[in-house]
Amino acid sequence: MGDARIRLGMVGGGKDAMIGAVHRIAARIDGRFDLVAGALSSTPGKSRESGAALGLPAERTYDDFRQMAVAEAARADGIEAVAIVTPNHVHAPAAEAFLAHGIHVICDKPLAASQTDAEVMARAVADSGALFVLTHTYTGYPMIRHARQAVSRGELGALRIVQVEYAQSWLTDAVESRGLKQAQWRIDPARSGAGGAIADIGTHAYHLARFVTGLGGAELAADLTSFGARRTLDDNAHVLLRFQGGARGMLWCSQVAPGCENGLRLRVYGDTGGLSWAQEDPDVLWVTHHGEATRRIVRGGPGAGDAAAAVSRVPAGHPEGYLEGFATLYSEAAGAIRAVRSGIPAADAMGDLPGIAAGLEGMAFIRACVVSAERNAAWVKV
Amino acid sequence: MGDARIRLGMVGGGKDAMIGAVHRIAARIDGRFDLVAGALSSTPGKSRESGAALGLPAERTYDDFRQMAVAEAARADGIEAVAIVTPNHVHAPAAEAFLAHGIHVICDKPLAASQTDAEVMARAVADSGALFVLTHTYTGYPMIRHARQAVSRGELGALRIVQVEYAQSWLTDAVESRGLKQAQWRIDPARSGAGGAIADIGTHAYHLARFVTGLGGAELAADLTSFGARRTLDDNAHVLLRFQGGARGMLWCSQVAPGCENGLRLRVYGDTGGLSWAQEDPDVLWVTHHGEATRRIVRGGPGAGDAAAAVSRVPAGHPEGYLEGFATLYSEAAGAIRAVRSGIPAADAMGDLPGIAAGLEGMAFIRACVVSAERNAAWVKV
Amino acid sequence: MGDARIRLGMVGGGKDAMIGAVHRIAARIDGRFDLVAGALSSTPGKSRESGAALGLPAERTYDDFRQMAVAEAARADGIEAVAIVTPNHVHAPAAEAFLAHGIHVICDKPLAASQTDAEVMARAVADSGALFVLTHTYTGYPMIRHARQAVSRGELGALRIVQVEYAQSWLTDAVESRGLKQAQWRIDPARSGAGGAIADIGTHAYHLARFVTGLGGAELAADLTSFGARRTLDDNAHVLLRFQGGARGMLWCSQVAPGCENGLRLRVYGDTGGLSWAQEDPDVLWVTHHGEATRRIVRGGPGAGDAAAAVSRVPAGHPEGYLEGFATLYSEAAGAIRAVRSGIPAADAMGDLPGIAAGLEGMAFIRACVVSAERNAAWVKV
Amino acid sequence: MGDARIRLGMVGGGKDAMIGAVHRIAARIDGRFDLVAGALSSTPGKSRESGAALGLPAERTYDDFRQMAVAEAARADGIEAVAIVTPNHVHAPAAEAFLAHGIHVICDKPLAASQTDAEVMARAVADSGALFVLTHTYTGYPMIRHARQAVSRGELGALRIVQVEYAQSWLTDAVESRGLKQAQWRIDPARSGAGGAIADIGTHAYHLARFVTGLGGAELAADLTSFGARRTLDDNAHVLLRFQGGARGMLWCSQVAPGCENGLRLRVYGDTGGLSWAQEDPDVLWVTHHGEATRRIVRGGPGAGDAAAAVSRVPAGHPEGYLEGFATLYSEAAGAIRAVRSGIPAADAMGDLPGIAAGLEGMAFIRACVVSAERNAAWVKV
Repeated sequence: MGDARIRLGMVGGGKDAMIGAVHRIAARIDGRFDLVAGALSSTPGKSRESGAALGLPAERTYDDFRQMAVAEAARADGIEAVAIVTPNHVHAPAAEAFLAHGIHVICDKPLAASQTDAEVMARAVADSGALFVLTHTYTGYPMIRHARQAVSRGELGALRIVQVEYAQSWLTDAVESRGLKQAQWRIDPARSGAGGAIADIGTHAYHLARFVTGLGGAELAADLTSFGARRTLDDNAHVLLRFQGGARGMLWCSQVAPGCENGLRLRVYGDTGGLSWAQEDPDVLWVTHHGEATRRIVRGGPGAGDAAAAVSRVPAGHPEGYLEGFATLYSEAAGAIRAVRSGIPAADAMGDLPGIAAGLEGMAFIRACVVSAERNAAWVKV
Repeated sequence: MGDARIRLGMVGGGKDAMIGAVHRIAARIDGRFDLVAGALSSTPGKSRESGAALGLPAERTYDDFRQMAVAEAARADGIEAVAIVTPNHVHAPAAEAFLAHGIHVICDKPLAASQTDAEVMARAVADSGALFVLTHTYTGYPMIRHARQAVSRGELGALRIVQVEYAQSWLTDAVESRGLKQAQWRIDPARSGAGGAIADIGTHAYHLARFVTGLGGAELAADLTSFGARRTLDDNAHVLLRFQGGARGMLWCSQVAPGCENGLRLRVYGDTGGLSWAQEDPDVLWVTHHGEATRRIVRGGPGAGDAAAAVSRVPAGHPEGYLEGFATLYSEAAGAIRAVRSGIPAADAMGDLPGIAAGLEGMAFIRACVVSAERNAAWVKV
Repeated sequence: MGDARIRLGMVGGGKDAMIGAVHRIAARIDGRFDLVAGALSSTPGKSRESGAALGLPAERTYDDFRQMAVAEAARADGIEAVAIVTPNHVHAPAAEAFLAHGIHVICDKPLAASQTDAEVMARAVADSGALFVLTHTYTGYPMIRHARQAVSRGELGALRIVQVEYAQSWLTDAVESRGLKQAQWRIDPARSGAGGAIADIGTHAYHLARFVTGLGGAELAADLTSFGARRTLDDNAHVLLRFQGGARGMLWCSQVAPGCENGLRLRVYGDTGGLSWAQEDPDVLWVTHHGEATRRIVRGGPGAGDAAAAVSRVPAGHPEGYLEGFATLYSEAAGAIRAVRSGIPAADAMGDLPGIAAGLEGMAFIRACVVSAERNAAWVKV
Repeated sequence: MGDARIRLGMVGGGKDAMIGAVHRIAARIDGRFDLVAGALSSTPGKSRESGAALGLPAERTYDDFRQMAVAEAARADGIEAVAIVTPNHVHAPAAEAFLAHGIHVICDKPLAASQTDAEVMARAVADSGALFVLTHTYTGYPMIRHARQAVSRGELGALRIVQVEYAQSWLTDAVESRGLKQAQWRIDPARSGAGGAIADIGTHAYHLARFVTGLGGAELAADLTSFGARRTLDDNAHVLLRFQGGARGMLWCSQVAPGCENGLRLRVYGDTGGLSWAQEDPDVLWVTHHGEATRRIVRGGPGAGDAAAAVSRVPAGHPEGYLEGFATLYSEAAGAIRAVRSGIPAADAMGDLPGIAAGLEGMAFIRACVVSAERNAAWVKV
């Protein structure tokens, strides 16, 4: 905490953008970053206006992220890390621009809008030696850390079943035709890529299941649907999963489920126990050892282990939520940046952080879903 | 209520049987039946012992259901209806025996252990003119009646998504090898038929979804698993669903999910609203009209309509549960029997009751799941 | 179960009465009673009409309970027990009439409308040698039996705090002026006695706390309010409690709390643990051993002990509710009646059943509340 | 946001202190403060060590708050506001020291350890013209803002009943004798004042009820208990409330209730509606209009009004919690400080912020509870 704060830039996240503001709060919560520069919008005037509103110096408010990468790299007090919070299709060129100067990248998910872009990014990361952090927020929640620890300690026994779902309602109506920008780019293949809901939230769900269970080698059978009129990308997906080793699962994601706000939920069952977690009540993890009463384990309370404690800020019963989970990724990124500074290789510094591999796997998940759906839900390896 | 009670017999349901006792309570709750005869076990001594424990006259406690059918049909005060609560493979011969004498049948689900048996039963029902009621208990819950009414009134708009699941934990361990009879016959294809969990609870889930939504013409892709060692029947099933008209869904059923007791849950989403119901909290239905706050509609409370009220016994906040839901089927069966007595054709008398058609559809569902699973989760029409 | 059913009569409970129908269902659930006679209404025509609707023989449908007591006592097949389900002021004369003939009484709560009546009843019970069961329904719930067992086994340590509440909303409006009969007698001191909500539901709450904790010797300070215009009896009560031995508590009961249906809730805390139970989710008991995660103990599931199992009918996850809890009192009454028949003294046969002592204590509670409230919430010994 | 950050100092909050870290996060979340100076501990070495850990310049890490006030007031870039996060008995001298220099004060609750101190503070605030903000955190929650707005708009009608409770478990054991510093000062009258739980959390509960309902002029009857051995201050309190205008209520607070983490809960009932809120699920408010189904209003969702939206950061379903509620007080304090800077009088700048009046009322509440308890729960005016 006493270390100097890390100088952070931001690409995207201008006025009216939702996720940019979230990144900024997350970067502030634990006090390990200072936002000092930005290319906050692809519309120059808006970028400057947004920068001023955030108190950024005018000379570090850029019209273009490439210009920003060059200029910041040239400054003695230039940014050490950049947060990329744009629509998907901008992730790759922006990441490349900063990685080329050895600037660490914290990037929103999914990784990219195309497989080509994703591969470009992977090469850029490898070439740069810099850190690449993908903000799969939900892995930052304390009770998700506890869930993962419980699974890895064998509390559930051999895993059998993984039920994961992520249900929202905000695309129930044709909000895209009423001017909602966040809807517009998400339903546009040119900006989002080949996946709709499956990319926007399905990758979160898939990553969460992977993070907690450690199960890999999945194949899947996906049924994608576009319920909204004139939508080409899926707004609902039903996916069967088979993991290496025999565990089976289901993934449902939807953005057209009225009554669901941000309904990410994970349940995992093994041959000796089960667990259940819901993002909207994130401080609670339900754990059952088969043959015993289900226990309600709360963040900060009895039974919550060291993995949860390590990323917890306040005592039990004082709810931590989405912003704190997000902040944990930023804090861990700060730790990793300091580690890299001290000579530790980027790959070793990542710890629990989702990185380029998670990003590529998310892209593989999207592609497998799309291919499977085109083949009438045939099985496809992720 | 003032009408004389209907004379009821029972096949199966001897000592230690769980579901037989449930049927007896259900038959008593609304006071429309008197249990007067039984062939309560295939083990003669046990049948007599069970009959005595229930206070049945010795001369109406039979060793064999065929003998019982003949003897009761010959009595002036013979039974008018029989409850069949045996393992699945006995449903068909028992139903045939009683239907042949025009005795109404109330039969546990699933319909039968084989397609051949199911067809035999269907013919027997058609030939007899008697009623055949299949105890899909969960359709008797007041808030399920309300859910169905809400859907049919268009409260959710055009249906898009159906998520149904039924998770239990009782087969997590190899309880069958420790002498649990209810487990032993359920995992035995000779007594259960081709489906395990999919037959035992999957048919409940499928029927519930069908009952509430009215959606038909489904095709499905099923992934069946036997996690328990040395089990040949599925104890877990993941199923994708496509309904006529474009709605999609998922069905998960499992008997190896630690922490789940009797976790039947239904969620339905349309283009203007959604609903959610959980069997373990059955007096509550969550209804969302898109763009409004979710409402908690409770049995007996504001917003619960006449369909729920018609099958409700006590005021809001006084929980009704499984036995009352079951009792509603018995009460409606009593009403149907009286209607048939008064000359109304059996088919017209059934009202909301699940009958032979529901049974055949359940068999078709099981078969489709099994066939799909054999074909690596290929799509199969139900 | 094989024993002949006990012949039951009923006083009150005619058409439109709510609680009479509940008693009849409760008496049927476990099949240990046959309703064979009734004086179902103080309006003769209605009594006969109600009897016919229930299928009672015309000659055993009485216009008057005194006449019924005499006539039934004279029959060889006369009733063995009578359920009294009238407004409070009829409890005493009705109970006296039947007890005088040695007929067992199952009586709705609170015991009586006046202290004089209560004392008359107590003498009548003592003189008769017959059983007197007061239907404090909520003590029949399995998880309440478990809670009591947990406390008595010392799972919570030395008890410190008892929080009990019972909140309803049905008197929020002036429903009495719109013809609701159940409201009319409850707000009428001549028929209800000196207590309103405190008598109708406060006695339930107090009895439940006493039943689970075993704590006695309470003194209380009560603040009673009549929020409804022109009501003389309380419709809301706030009560402080001090038990012998140092435990303290609070009791809130209200019939004017919008959003509350039948919100009876009990929480008990000792120096090593706590528990929480809510009537509207009755199959679940939350138990905390201080320093451990809270456990969700469900009826029929792991951790639920023999006291709960003894009064449970179906497996975990199949909700039992209000009617089953009520039925347990009837079943235990049947057991007690058989015990008395076999020569066991009534007092010894009662087991867990609430009887005349509980009734007198309820009256003492009402009186203490009323007296305390008159003295501006001064402390009064129950 | 574009405005320069406010320079903040802190008194207390050194290493191992819980609430200091919370204040620092809260001050950072919305980016409106920079912590630049501190007297973080009364132990000089520890203060410097803590300052270094926080990255404070050595010359602005003070051994003593009085010295800090003088030094900072003398700097051109001195602090504009100070957060006081010490045990209660230090609040008054610290506040005085900074207010004397016109430095705004953000102070933890309760206001002070004695009435004398409280009065001193009130005079100091009045004399200074500076802002005094008391961190009654829970008033910063969006759904509490909505609740208050709903009440003030008359959604519940005329208020009748207020049930508020705040239950924790952390003093169940004698943790004070095992070295827990937070317990040690809280049970020490010299540092805490005359109230134990009633001061530490009861004042939160009382303030919350007051904030939401606007009801005033309360008198109360309090029963205070010290369950922990050798404790002189209450660790449990039961309080009856009577408000001007006729509403009645109850307040329960406890720090010895096993299973309760931070169980602050408020329920309010009027003659046309009711609401319920629980701090551990803070994004949800349950609202009932009598005669309609209860609605689940979520932060950011349909039905949540502008008062909630004004203090909300992320969309519905992305949980905001304790730190965000706290941050709202800091953000509003920043707004108030800027308003004062621009010439608006401190009193007018406070808006919804709890200030010295709320602090004095909290002291009056504590005193009334203590006096009432000494008089055996006699009624005492707050």
